[in-house]
Formats: sequence, C-alpha cells, structure tokens
Amino acid sequence: MRIVRLALPGEPYGRVQDDTVHLLSGPPWLGGGPTGQLVPLDSGQLLAPVVPSKIVAIGRNYAAHAKELGHDVPSEPLLFLKAPSAIVGPGAPIRVPSVSARVEHEAELALVIGKRCKRVAEAQALEHVFGWTVLNDVTARDLQKKDVQFTRSKSFDTFCPVGPWIETSLDVADVEVSARVDGVVRQRGRTRNMIFPVPMLISYVSCMMTLEPGDVITTGTPEGVGPLVPGNVLETAVEGIGVLRNPIVADDES
Amino acid sequence: MRIVRLALPGEPYGRVQDDTVHLLSGPPWLGGGPTGQLVPLDSGQLLAPVVPSKIVAIGRNYAAHAKELGHDVPSEPLLFLKAPSAIVGPGAPIRVPSVSARVEHEAELALVIGKRCKRVAEAQALEHVFGWTVLNDVTARDLQKKDVQFTRSKSFDTFCPVGPWIETSLDVADVEVSARVDGVVRQRGRTRNMIFPVPMLISYVSCMMTLEPGDVITTGTPEGVGPLVPGNVLETAVEGIGVLRNPIVADDES
Repeated sequence: MRIVRLALPGEPYGRVQDDTVHLLSGPPWLGGGPTGQLVPLDSGQLLAPVVPSKIVAIGRNYAAHAKELGHDVPSEPLLFLKAPSAIVGPGAPIRVPSVSARVEHEAELALVIGKRCKRVAEAQALEHVFGWTVLNDVTARDLQKKDVQFTRSKSFDTFCPVGPWIETSLDVADVEVSARVDGVVRQRGRTRNMIFPVPMLISYVSCMMTLEPGDVITTGTPEGVGPLVPGNVLETAVEGIGVLRNPIVADDES
Repeated sequence: MRIVRLALPGEPYGRVQDDTVHLLSGPPWLGGGPTGQLVPLDSGQLLAPVVPSKIVAIGRNYAAHAKELGHDVPSEPLLFLKAPSAIVGPGAPIRVPSVSARVEHEAELALVIGKRCKRVAEAQALEHVFGWTVLNDVTARDLQKKDVQFTRSKSFDTFCPVGPWIETSLDVADVEVSARVDGVVRQRGRTRNMIFPVPMLISYVSCMMTLEPGDVITTGTPEGVGPLVPGNVLETAVEGIGVLRNPIVADDES
C-alpha cells in the first residue's frame, strides 16, 4: 500500500492505486479510512506524507560513514532529534542558510510508527511500523562541528525532506539507500550494512520515549555525504520506495 | 490571564478566574475562545498546559550553572530539543529510569509561542509570546556526559514536567527561578542573570526554525542542579507564575 498526502484543501492523505488516489478521512495510523472520494494522482502536489510529533534520528549507523567523518563506530545508537518544522515534501526547495558555508546531504531510510509503543522488544518491533519512506537528514556540517550538539545544524527549516510517499510493504533488511546530485551518484549504501538494524533501533528508542503513531525514526546515512549548493537538484532514493527530488536554493531566494 | 488544561473529557483548555475555569474551544494560541461553559478549578486534575510541536531548550544560559558543570560561558545560545513525549503535567510522577544512576533537576522559565514566526527581530520578539510557564528540564546527568548529544539524557518519558498553568501577563526580565526538593531549596536564580535574554533567544531560534503557535522555548537553568531519587518531591517555581510539584518514582513503580 502506498500512502500520499496531497496539496489539496485539507491536505488529505490518500492511498494510491495506479494513477488514482483514494482519499482517506485522516492519517491511516490514526484510523483514517476511505472517504469514497477518488482524485487523479496528479491533481495536487505531493506533500511530506507524515506530520510527526517527533523525528528521532540515528547518527553513525553505517561504519563507512562514521569513518568518513573521522568517528569511531558507536557502541550504542547515537540519538538526536530533528525539529518537525524542518520537514518539507517532494519538490520543495532545500534552503541553504547564509550562516553555513557547508550544507550536506545524508540519504536515509525512515520509518513511520503505526501503533503507540513503549519498551517494545526487538522481536515485536516491526509490528509497530506503519510503513517506510525516504528522508534526507540535511546537515550544516560546519555548524555541526562547531556546535557539538547536532540540533541547530540539522533543524533549519527545509532540512528534512521526506517522501515522496510511504510504502507499507517492504522488507528493509537489504535495500539500497542512495543520493544523487545533479544526476551524479554521491551515496549508494545498503541497509544490510547498518551497525544497528531497524528492529534494534525501534526497541532502543522505545525504551526511552513513547513512540506515537506517525512518529518518524530515520535510520542513519551510508558513506558518501557531500555538499549541496544552490542550483543543485538532490535526489534521495530507497530501493522499493521511490525517489525524493528537491532543488537546492539560497535562503534568500523565493 | 491564567490558562490551564484539565483532565476532563476532551482535555479542554480553560481560563482561570478565581476558583472557576471558563472552558475554551481549543488552545487560545490557535484561536480557541470561550465556550460559555464554566467548571470549578478543582473539577479535574491539571494537565500540562500546552502540547507543543517542539520544545527548544537552551543550555548553559546562566554563567554560574555553566561553571558548576565545568563549562565555559557559550558565545552563542546552545540549542537542543526535548521530545514532546517527555511532557507531564503538575502532580505527575517523574520516573527515574534504571539505565541512569544520576537524574537531576533543572528549574527553568519557559515560554509558549502565540504567533507563528520566522526571523523575528529582538525588538518584536515578545509580541510573539503567548505566555509563560514553569518547566523542569530533567536530565540524566551520567548519560548526558556519556552520550555527548543531550537527546537521550533529556527526553526520557516524564523528563519534561510543565505547568501548573500559563500566565500571559508577566515581566520576565527579573524574576526568581527556583527548585526545592523535599522542601529544601536547591536552586534559586534570577532571570536577570541569563547570559542571553529572552528576546534574543526567540530571535536566535527563529532564525533557524519557524516557531509555531504552542511551541515551547525553555530558557536555561540557574546554578544548584542536583540529584533526584525516588521518594523525593520536586517543586519547581517561577516568581509570578506558580509552583509545579512532581513526585519522583522509580521507573518500575506504578
């Protein structure tokens, strides 16, 4: 099942079937069901397919990426939060703020929680996932190094493109996660190389924080991170989901 | 004006007048207005008076507190995010997780945003504040030191007590911020000693992130932070707002 959110009045969620969207009465992870209304898939720009109450991100979850930034492989997942206000959808510009001289892409597989959970065991973790999407954990690398805390560098408005949709049926044990800039491949990793696999991440996070339906966990980026400059087009992809395309602009461009 | 949220069906917001609550149709920062329904103030337990889309916290904003933790005074505000799932209201227990051997209190003045804003100037910053409340930025100090990132140590469920209400009329330039544990004063600071005053903080954060109505900024803690153990009662207070009282329990206590 493929879930989208459309830039139509009320910003409805919908289920995609071929070129048609079956509109839903709300987010399906909060019980939204079919309204009976059908619209063509191209009848509205796609929005980010989820509005989470929090975005929990995992740092250094691929050994080759930890190494390229000069870090050791962590012994436990490294958690941080991205502000929900940073989310943009497919096609929306990523704005490079003037206070950073180095903004970089980090292609990631992200998951959307389907059922509230706390202290879920690894063996049951995937039962609490509604579906899977593509996320780019855009990062002002210079500010990240300067600040130590990751908050500012990863939570500028537009620094969290998500989409183009949510796929509910996907085996994520070994899929490709990639980023292309102006058509050139920059990142190409496989989820089987995660240090901490997805069920462990869900279990680990849920031992601290109650995960709410619609919450997003983004699972870390493979090696190959690099700069984004105004004029670039970033394509973030996860095999079996799709391609999330975002142009890069300077923050003062409209 | 004093705004509460009550543990009644629908968890309504209300405006307090003497011992009566005038129920509102929604959060006042989203346009909620009087429904005409009145209930006694003691008709329901108070809930945290706000459900923010994000909680932006400021580290080391009092020089004496930066010093007690062995840090220099920062040259720019140090930002981090607390997960909204960590919020609890007045009276609710703060749960000490078994993975931490040292949980500490951090009494803070917090503000609730009233109007969406981005890149607001310091001179206009206070116009975007709906009101003021009391927040304790509870922190697992051992995990904070171990993790470097503040996320895990400050986002356990129950690590963000907020309340008991929101006061809309308050001059916060020089009010006392304090914490008492079992009646003994542990922290007693004054907001005039903030390194970065409130209008600067709002302006600074808004240059990165769009602030949404209901978002919370918590403005840092004065010196005197110390341990909380099961059995303690924590009282966090801000002069001119009120006292936020929370018992401390072990995480496996019901």
